[in-house]
Amino acid sequence: MSISEFSFELKAQNGKARLGKIISPKGNIDTPAFMPVGTQGTVKGLFVDDILKTNTQIILGNTYHLLLRPGTNILEKFNGIHNFMNWHKPILTDSGGYQIMSLSKFNKIDKKLGAIFSSHLDGKKIILSPEKSIKVQKSINSDIIMVLDECPKLTNDKKILSNAIDVSTDWAKRSKIEFGKDKSKALFGIAQGGLYKDLRIESIQKLIEIDFNGYAMGGLAVGEKQSDMFKILNETTDYLPKNKPRYLMGVGTPSDILGAVNEGIDMFDCVMPTRSGRTGLAFTWNGKINLKNSKYQSDKTPLDENCDIRELNKYSKSYLHHLIKSKEMLASMLISLHNIYFYQQFMREIRLSIKNGSFQKFYKKYIYLFD
Amino acid sequence: MSISEFSFELKAQNGKARLGKIISPKGNIDTPAFMPVGTQGTVKGLFVDDILKTNTQIILGNTYHLLLRPGTNILEKFNGIHNFMNWHKPILTDSGGYQIMSLSKFNKIDKKLGAIFSSHLDGKKIILSPEKSIKVQKSINSDIIMVLDECPKLTNDKKILSNAIDVSTDWAKRSKIEFGKDKSKALFGIAQGGLYKDLRIESIQKLIEIDFNGYAMGGLAVGEKQSDMFKILNETTDYLPKNKPRYLMGVGTPSDILGAVNEGIDMFDCVMPTRSGRTGLAFTWNGKINLKNSKYQSDKTPLDENCDIRELNKYSKSYLHHLIKSKEMLASMLISLHNIYFYQQFMREIRLSIKNGSFQKFYKKYIYLFD
Repeated sequence: MSISEFSFELKAQNGKARLGKIISPKGNIDTPAFMPVGTQGTVKGLFVDDILKTNTQIILGNTYHLLLRPGTNILEKFNGIHNFMNWHKPILTDSGGYQIMSLSKFNKIDKKLGAIFSSHLDGKKIILSPEKSIKVQKSINSDIIMVLDECPKLTNDKKILSNAIDVSTDWAKRSKIEFGKDKSKALFGIAQGGLYKDLRIESIQKLIEIDFNGYAMGGLAVGEKQSDMFKILNETTDYLPKNKPRYLMGVGTPSDILGAVNEGIDMFDCVMPTRSGRTGLAFTWNGKINLKNSKYQSDKTPLDENCDIRELNKYSKSYLHHLIKSKEMLASMLISLHNIYFYQQFMREIRLSIKNGSFQKFYKKYIYLFD
Repeated sequence: MSISEFSFELKAQNGKARLGKIISPKGNIDTPAFMPVGTQGTVKGLFVDDILKTNTQIILGNTYHLLLRPGTNILEKFNGIHNFMNWHKPILTDSGGYQIMSLSKFNKIDKKLGAIFSSHLDGKKIILSPEKSIKVQKSINSDIIMVLDECPKLTNDKKILSNAIDVSTDWAKRSKIEFGKDKSKALFGIAQGGLYKDLRIESIQKLIEIDFNGYAMGGLAVGEKQSDMFKILNETTDYLPKNKPRYLMGVGTPSDILGAVNEGIDMFDCVMPTRSGRTGLAFTWNGKINLKNSKYQSDKTPLDENCDIRELNKYSKSYLHHLIKSKEMLASMLISLHNIYFYQQFMREIRLSIKNGSFQKFYKKYIYLFD
C-alpha cells in the first residue's frame, strides 16, 4: 500500500536528542537526517544514483535558483524537479528568502508585496510574494515546502529582529492559506528571533497557532558563535511541538549537527560536504583533512577503507592529492561523494546511538572532532 | 594462462580498412581502437569504473604531464600509474615531445641532449632525452611506449621536415636501445615528414629498419585540411608493415577516424569527446549537437535512448541544457561519459562493418556526419 499522507513519528529520545521517521509518499526519512544541497537541480559533482548509494533519503533544492533557471515553465513540463533531475525520493525546497538576501543584486522587503529583488543572472526585477513562493515550490513539486520568511543578517538589534518576526508571521499565515490542504506534501514554518530567547519563543508560538507540519529554526548559522547557536537552541526547542519534525536550516559541520541533535533538532542541510569536496577538504572519522597538504603526497591509504561505493576505498590520499593539485574534476567528484557518504554515515551513527541509549557517549566522543 | 607477450593479430581487411587485435598482458585491444585521453592520470570527468562500462580497452597518458606531476618518484611508489589511478587495463603513453612543443614556456631541440624545456608549472628547466623519455614511461609502467620524436609545427618547409626526420630517427634508435627487450611491453616508432609522400616513406623505412612493435603517424592533425591528412595516409600506409598496429596520433572527430580507418589506421586518441563534453557538445548518431542551444531547453528526449550506463538515457536534453547553462559539473560528467560511450560505440560499429564486409557502406553513411 502506498503512503499518501505526510506524517512524523517520534521513536525514541535520549536526553533531548530524538530518533524519528518522516513518512511521505516519495519515501521515508530517518531522523536526525542530513539533506545534501542540490541548489540548481543537481548535488554538485554527484551522479543521482551515487547519491542514493550514500543512503541519502532527501535532498534540498533552492527555490530562488530554480525559479530563475530552468524556471517554472520547464519544471512544470516535467511535472516537477524529480523527473527533471531523475531523483525520485523526497525533496525539500527553501522559500527563496535566504538567497534573495545573500545573492541578488538589489533587494527590499515589502510586507504586503513580498521580497523584491533583481536576478543575479540578468538583473531582471522579480517580486516574490509568500503566495508566489508556495506556487513556485508547487511547480517544483517539492515534498516539503518552506514558507517565505524574512531572514535578517546577524544582528543584536531587537527592533530589526522583532520586525522580521512580524513580517515572517504574516507571510507564514498567507503561505498556509496558499498551500491549502495537500496532505501528500508538508509545509514548514520558520522561526526567527536571532539569539534572543523571548523573541524566538514569541515567533515559535505564533507559528504553532498557524499550525505547520514541521518547524524550522531560521536566522541561525549566519555568523554567530557555535556556542551561541547551541545556547539559543537549548533555551527554545522545548517550545516546539514534540510530534513535528524540527529543522535547523543551513547547518553545518558534523559537530554543529551533533550539538544541535543534542538540543532536539531532527533535520539539517548544508553545502559543506560538497563545497569542501571541491577544495580538497575531506571529513573522516579522524577529523577533517586537507588533501592539498603535501604530507598526503605519498600516502597510499584511502580516506575510508570501509567505503566501497564507487570503489572509493581504492583511491589513495596520494592520488587525491595529485588530482586536487592538478585541478582535476575527478578530485571534486571523489571527495564530494566521500563527504556526503561520511555525513550520512555520521547521521546513521547518531541515530543508532539514540536508539541504543548511548547518544551522550557518542556526543562526547565527536563534538570536538571537527572544530 | 595469462598472456606475457605483446603481439598483434590482423583478422580481416576491407579495402585498406583493417580489423585486428592487440594482445597484451594487461588486456586485449580490438582495433580499430579509440583511446580516451587521461592526461594527468584521469580521463577528465569520468570515474574509472565508468570508463570500463564504455568498453574502453586502453587509455592514453601524457608523459610530459605525469613527469611534472605527480612525478616518477610517486609513480614508482605505486609501481606505475595503473595502481595509482586504479585503471588496470593497458595504457599507452606518448613520449612528451608534443606537449613540450605546445605547452612549455621555452623549448629547444638538441639532437644530442634531447628536448630542453621549462615546466609550464614552475618554470624549472628540464632536459628530456630519448633515453629519459623511455625511463619515465617505464616508471609510469606504460604498456605501449612511444619514442621521443621531434614533431614540427605545420609547415611546407622540406628542410625543417627533413631535419625532424633526421633527429627523430636518431632518437628512435636510441629509444630502442634504452627500451631493451621487455616483451610484455611495446615500443612504437613515430613517422614524420609532414604532407610529403617521399619524406613520409623515408621516415617509415628508417623506422622499419630499427624494428618497432607498432608505428605511429606523427605530425598530422596539426592544422592541415582533413583531405590533406587522408591523402598522405592514402599514399603511405601501404609502406607500413601489415603485421604491426598503426596509430594516428591525436585524431580526431568521428569522421577523421572513419577516413583514417579507410586508409588502414588501427589506433586513435583524442581529447575531443571529453573536451567537447565540458563545453556541452555531444556526439550522437544524428551528428554533433550543441546542448547550449536554446532549442534543447524543453527537449525531453535523451541523447541516446539505448544508452543505459549510469542511467544516461534518463537524462533529457532539457536537463543537460539546464546543467550546461548553469555551469554545473554534472553537465561535464554526463556529456563526457556519453561522448566516450558514443566514440566506443562508433568504433565497435566500424569493427563490425569490417568483419561483415560492409565497411564501405558504413563509411559512406557517416563520413560527412560530423563535419
